[in-house]
Amino acid sequence: MRRTSFADVNCSIAQAMEVIGDPWSVLIVRDAFFGLRRFEELRARLEIPRNTLASRLDHLCAHGVLERVPSQERPDRSEYRLTDKGRALGPVLVTLVRWGDEWSGLDEPPVVMVERSTGRVLDPVLADRETGELLEDLDYRPEPGPGARHGRRITTTA
Amino acid sequence: MRRTSFADVNCSIAQAMEVIGDPWSVLIVRDAFFGLRRFEELRARLEIPRNTLASRLDHLCAHGVLERVPSQERPDRSEYRLTDKGRALGPVLVTLVRWGDEWSGLDEPPVVMVERSTGRVLDPVLADRETGELLEDLDYRPEPGPGARHGRRITTTA
Repeated sequence: MRRTSFADVNCSIAQAMEVIGDPWSVLIVRDAFFGLRRFEELRARLEIPRNTLASRLDHLCAHGVLERVPSQERPDRSEYRLTDKGRALGPVLVTLVRWGDEWSGLDEPPVVMVERSTGRVLDPVLADRETGELLEDLDYRPEPGPGARHGRRITTTA
Repeated sequence: MRRTSFADVNCSIAQAMEVIGDPWSVLIVRDAFFGLRRFEELRARLEIPRNTLASRLDHLCAHGVLERVPSQERPDRSEYRLTDKGRALGPVLVTLVRWGDEWSGLDEPPVVMVERSTGRVLDPVLADRETGELLEDLDYRPEPGPGARHGRRITTTA
């Protein structure tokens, strides 16, 4: 089976796929947002094979999304915590949740985003930071940015 | 090698992963947003093996993200177009772009979102639809929603 690396593709989406391009990595990050930190917690919650979980945790640590730290309660064990880079994935997860809510055929949202102080259920949408206009109300398109260059390269390794 | 289906997991993220849980599917959807419609265009742009592209296009059509329609110019050929469900993935791609822009090590954004009428570069962030508050300024957390139920199930097939 061929595996493909997107590490040298000049595209921010491809770069993101290099890190969170498989379902388990995304679900591990999801559960880290839910506060799960220990290997056994993650294994039980995800019902993931032990070696798969170990390799995905290594992968996410290598890419700086999680960091491995000694457990405060049991220093002989490790915990996995979201780094700043990992926490910055929050908006990706929120948009995935909203798309899945609307389009996956689940009847009602299994999870909602709630403001802690008020208990209010949020309805997250994309807006332009400067004007506050909702992107869904704007006519916009992707265009080459300052980091654009001609050509793309995708490395396929055996 | 084991493959895992997330189709019966009661989680909108897992449901989304069932559809766009691999890098090629995400990059095909990206290029559909860029206006690519023909098999050969996608193959050349992505440098993707022909049979991989064919299977991913079948997958995305089967999940209703793309639809296969006869080409207007060459009715003997097919084109692939985003459905409403596919276009609804826009916010997921935008948040992936922004995360990759900031955290992947690319110097500058290869792609930016531009308002067509004004040429203004947008800075897309998540906001609450009702109040317009930015989610990054709010203290919020995921909580069980109306569709929550106890137990999760993940099916692992050989």
